[in-house]
Amino acid sequence: MTINHQIRLAARPMGLPKDSDWQRTEEPMPEPAEGQFLVKVLYLSLDPAMRGWMNDGKSYIPPVGLGEVMRAGAVGKVIASKHPKFSVGEVVVGTFGVQEYALSDGRAVNKIDPGLAPLPVWLGTLGMPGMTAYFGLLEVGEAKAGETVVVSGAAGAVGGVVGQIAKIKGCRVVGIAGGADKCRYAVEEMGFDACIDYKAEDVKTALKQHCPKGIDVYFDNVGGDILDAALTQITRGARIVICGAISQYNNTTPVKGPSNYMSLLVNRASMKGMVVFDYADRYAIAGREMAGWLVAGKLKSREDIVEGLQTFPETLLKLFKGENTGKLVLKVADDHE
Amino acid sequence: MTINHQIRLAARPMGLPKDSDWQRTEEPMPEPAEGQFLVKVLYLSLDPAMRGWMNDGKSYIPPVGLGEVMRAGAVGKVIASKHPKFSVGEVVVGTFGVQEYALSDGRAVNKIDPGLAPLPVWLGTLGMPGMTAYFGLLEVGEAKAGETVVVSGAAGAVGGVVGQIAKIKGCRVVGIAGGADKCRYAVEEMGFDACIDYKAEDVKTALKQHCPKGIDVYFDNVGGDILDAALTQITRGARIVICGAISQYNNTTPVKGPSNYMSLLVNRASMKGMVVFDYADRYAIAGREMAGWLVAGKLKSREDIVEGLQTFPETLLKLFKGENTGKLVLKVADDHE
Repeated sequence: MTINHQIRLAARPMGLPKDSDWQRTEEPMPEPAEGQFLVKVLYLSLDPAMRGWMNDGKSYIPPVGLGEVMRAGAVGKVIASKHPKFSVGEVVVGTFGVQEYALSDGRAVNKIDPGLAPLPVWLGTLGMPGMTAYFGLLEVGEAKAGETVVVSGAAGAVGGVVGQIAKIKGCRVVGIAGGADKCRYAVEEMGFDACIDYKAEDVKTALKQHCPKGIDVYFDNVGGDILDAALTQITRGARIVICGAISQYNNTTPVKGPSNYMSLLVNRASMKGMVVFDYADRYAIAGREMAGWLVAGKLKSREDIVEGLQTFPETLLKLFKGENTGKLVLKVADDHE
Repeated sequence: MTINHQIRLAARPMGLPKDSDWQRTEEPMPEPAEGQFLVKVLYLSLDPAMRGWMNDGKSYIPPVGLGEVMRAGAVGKVIASKHPKFSVGEVVVGTFGVQEYALSDGRAVNKIDPGLAPLPVWLGTLGMPGMTAYFGLLEVGEAKAGETVVVSGAAGAVGGVVGQIAKIKGCRVVGIAGGADKCRYAVEEMGFDACIDYKAEDVKTALKQHCPKGIDVYFDNVGGDILDAALTQITRGARIVICGAISQYNNTTPVKGPSNYMSLLVNRASMKGMVVFDYADRYAIAGREMAGWLVAGKLKSREDIVEGLQTFPETLLKLFKGENTGKLVLKVADDHE
């Protein structure tokens, strides 16, 4: 009998998730019923948004229930099928959860072409983070050639793609990231015009220096003091895209709201929230364009791959400690097994 | 010799402006040079924005310099003219300052028809506050029939007009104001569907009760905790218009940013700042429509008129203490003198 190892949410965390907030369970590998197929999970996507899914309360998606397998995007392979449209051997991406095997009825599952890009890329640049970057920058942020785009979390899965797309579109791009290595990666590997190390520099001063004409689009992944610093440097009519606020997700005190929000008034600027799911009907179009850029070498994808389902609790924390560069992925099994 | 009494900015206030932040001066009434005319000031507009003009630092308009006559919008009468387009006896509105007589070259000065509405109305419903309400609600907030509009400072010069225009446009309108009298005025006189007394009620609970379908447009004049409460009740795609933040203008501590701003993400909502001057080329169009509503009795204008130029320092404080209902106007001289 094959065992399905799983990680379930055991408690709603206060602050950073602790090991005791998780429960490790084992079940027999399930068998598909009529209309279902069985996926062997290969790679799991680890995302800052997961922290929000662990909280109770209304959000853009229901919370993960206590005792439920933790929600996670994943790439896997169909290993058994009683579904007319999914066949054994096909590689799929979907919300399969933090486990080794998942049943699916095919809803919100997409087939991918493993020949186009390595599997982990489908969780990053060609997955939700890439789609978030694409639609957030171009649709919500309305970035145009010649404008200055600033992105925080610049070495992360979303931020790195935001900056690269902005460069492709002819913008001046300034990243904000934590540490010299991440900044070097943003400038030297991803072609950003500049990258501010918020751990070593005064962000407001550095933004003033690197954005002499001000910030036209600020793509915010972090919130907190960095959002406040960006607000001081926006141009008239600037757009702030609220994609995330990782600096605030593990707060045990109230979220720090942007003190400088009245800069929106002075500058007739807007701050707009986004959720990538709203663009689902256009993922395919964006995906084709992004894949083209990848193949042409205009867009570089980087993944930070950690092995082992059981490392999930501590690996997730890398996101909140700023320890990952590129898309954080958990490898659960080998593709070729 | 006729004396021109003036009130000048003597010091940049910390917190609420004190009497010592002002200087009372006297000068001979000036005489117009070629291309100028002399205005006798009749009514002065007292606005929350004045507090911002007293601070140093970059904003949407330069600060009032120390020693300068305090900036103020006003209605006055032309009493001497060497300007080809302005004649003695004409009634004009412009930024004439806190003084009895002002010289003007005609720039940014408009003639008004005193037969259409009493003079103070030209500083309120037919003046900047009315224009702010009109363009803020309809252009920035994009309020549509059937939507729920919430406005803070509901008994103030801007808020009252926002709510009434929203009613004219077929919206459900909920005001937020301080005190039972202001709320009664909003509901009984201005036709709001409901008005929340923030001094007596929990704003979040009351918003939930009065906005069962959530808030589609929140027009914010106050900032602080009320903005935070509104953020918890917005609908998907809601628009928050940032018009002012009177609760924060006299802070000696940092501005309280909206802690609940991540509701913008969850709800794909936007928060957008506005400055009425941007709509100057369409004031006339809006003014005609508003005047039509006034004449038809669909729009009620209320002014809180205090007499005497010398009372300016303490009268201004009524705004920050929430003591005015309707547009706060300082009467400087009689129209018929």
